[in-house]
Amino acid sequence: MEREITLADVEAIAIGAGILGTGGGGNTYLGRVLLEKEMRERGKPCRIIDVDDVADDAHVCAIGGMGAPTVGVEKLPQGDEYMIAMRALEEHIHAPLSAILIGEIGGSNALRPLICALQMDLPVVDGDGMGRAFPELQMDTFAIGGLSLSPMALADCHGNVVIFHHVDSPRRAEQYGRILTIEMGGSAALAMPLMNGAQMKANIIGGTLTLTQRLGELVLDARRRSVESIDAVAEMGNGRVLFRGKITDVERRTVQGFARGRIKLAAFGDPNDTLEIVFQNENLVAWRNGELVCTVPDLICILNLEDSEPIGTEMLRYGLRVAVIAMPAPKELKTPQALAVVGPAAFGYDVEFQPMDGDLLM
Amino acid sequence: MEREITLADVEAIAIGAGILGTGGGGNTYLGRVLLEKEMRERGKPCRIIDVDDVADDAHVCAIGGMGAPTVGVEKLPQGDEYMIAMRALEEHIHAPLSAILIGEIGGSNALRPLICALQMDLPVVDGDGMGRAFPELQMDTFAIGGLSLSPMALADCHGNVVIFHHVDSPRRAEQYGRILTIEMGGSAALAMPLMNGAQMKANIIGGTLTLTQRLGELVLDARRRSVESIDAVAEMGNGRVLFRGKITDVERRTVQGFARGRIKLAAFGDPNDTLEIVFQNENLVAWRNGELVCTVPDLICILNLEDSEPIGTEMLRYGLRVAVIAMPAPKELKTPQALAVVGPAAFGYDVEFQPMDGDLLM
Repeated sequence: MEREITLADVEAIAIGAGILGTGGGGNTYLGRVLLEKEMRERGKPCRIIDVDDVADDAHVCAIGGMGAPTVGVEKLPQGDEYMIAMRALEEHIHAPLSAILIGEIGGSNALRPLICALQMDLPVVDGDGMGRAFPELQMDTFAIGGLSLSPMALADCHGNVVIFHHVDSPRRAEQYGRILTIEMGGSAALAMPLMNGAQMKANIIGGTLTLTQRLGELVLDARRRSVESIDAVAEMGNGRVLFRGKITDVERRTVQGFARGRIKLAAFGDPNDTLEIVFQNENLVAWRNGELVCTVPDLICILNLEDSEPIGTEMLRYGLRVAVIAMPAPKELKTPQALAVVGPAAFGYDVEFQPMDGDLLM
Repeated sequence: MEREITLADVEAIAIGAGILGTGGGGNTYLGRVLLEKEMRERGKPCRIIDVDDVADDAHVCAIGGMGAPTVGVEKLPQGDEYMIAMRALEEHIHAPLSAILIGEIGGSNALRPLICALQMDLPVVDGDGMGRAFPELQMDTFAIGGLSLSPMALADCHGNVVIFHHVDSPRRAEQYGRILTIEMGGSAALAMPLMNGAQMKANIIGGTLTLTQRLGELVLDARRRSVESIDAVAEMGNGRVLFRGKITDVERRTVQGFARGRIKLAAFGDPNDTLEIVFQNENLVAWRNGELVCTVPDLICILNLEDSEPIGTEMLRYGLRVAVIAMPAPKELKTPQALAVVGPAAFGYDVEFQPMDGDLLM
């Protein structure tokens, strides 16, 4: 079934993508401004298709920004990097692409495929490879499902495009892609993974673009009625509110191409009741008063308490009054194969994944 | 005219390439061993063709090792990296290559194209883009002549291949290629530049493979007769002997992917008569008792005094008794456009290029 996303939908999608971004995926305000500009200039909506609408032998490819959100919020895109990367892949395989995939539904990486789709006049598939955002290339359901990440293309803001013709593992794609992204200024346009329709259907997490829109509409509706929507957001994500409090400390450095750090929060009314969250672009593990309360791949989302505006790791600062929501990961991220790639140990944390009840998108 | 290079020719070519390498281009002993192994296993010689034997519309491409000679002498190649890089380019442009070019005639980079040619059953063109060795990708007559360095391919020892689909300048190819080479372990296989026969003829320095063979045969003949050949080597290169003495100090670090450093020499019988040479993979500038005596692009070659064996910058050490020979650069490297890329200022030295009389390959 084909539907359309118009200018009126963009704000909701940006908010929902910010929530599912768990801190990463790129600044959604910037993504929203750029998508709205593209829609206005082209005077047309985005076409969204369902996973099943893609032919099994059609070529499809995802796009997304590679780099640290702290860099992306200062180093603005030229605007056509993603299309240039996609065109390079088309040239490389000597075949046209039929649809654009969302690599990660979190942050502005949910919005960039819509911009690129307008530029290339292609539909976007409702779904993605994460159901959230993750910092590294091997961390998606396509790679976890065994698909090769090559050929993939990486483009900078000067029109330079590098094609990874063959990589011997998804981690190698991450390794070589990361070092080039850093050399490209810390933020680059990535087109991958390239696959056919059948491979896409076997591995994608469907319906996540629709979920972002529903989450965002919930928030916007509450704002219009001047009511808090924190609990309702948690409920729509099958999650729960972990904490309400004030950010009391932020450590954040851009290191090895990532925004890495930790934040501390204190509960309202009880400064001894604290929450600590570590992040690598995305929020990874949360401890309350020293006790583990949530880990990747479950989602740890930080929202402004007033209006449920999601707060990316690049925007964290002392004094913000926030709610921290935990949502269960999609079931595709909780298989043993997936947990080996996206569980806490994959990020260097010696803690067990204690899954929340339920799944995102049950 | 097609001719052959057989096992009996390899030692001479390795010596000649070591001389023209001016310290860089990769260790020729290793290159020689690998080429001899390939020839023995395949039981066939290398086919060498003249520049004019290539059709104007044929696709040809050069290969060479990228990285520091200090790394290359320890990190041995897998053996098929160059062919893998070339095959990736053929696949990318959907056309076969007709001949292999030598990117730089200095060091083992003169020998690697012969190995790859045996593997791909292609002829090698007698000529190269430098008439010597240089450390960076933009430093060849093809880039100086305005040819694009993309598409180019870079392969590591694990079969990974990256294609630079578009780069906006030769310096960008160097920048992105270098950082990937470092990530690949400091040594990688490069296939570039790709061009057609007409472009090759307009930019190549012809006859340099023949010159390496003649230089090496001169040295080998002298060794058989137990006579010194330093003066004869200098004469064949239209150069002169700058210095005879002992290496008294070597500073050398592998930094930013290059072997960088300086050496000091003292003349036999007069320790106050000194020569100092700075290098970046290749020898760049020489001062005698503080006075400038030779600079890039003219060639500064360090040879073992006993047997005229060329000494790469990776093999320099205290106590070696050597001769330093200066040879004039090929005329193609002394145009204003070329000197902007390969003159001393391009390496950060605030000295004037004072060309020696004559040209290499007059």
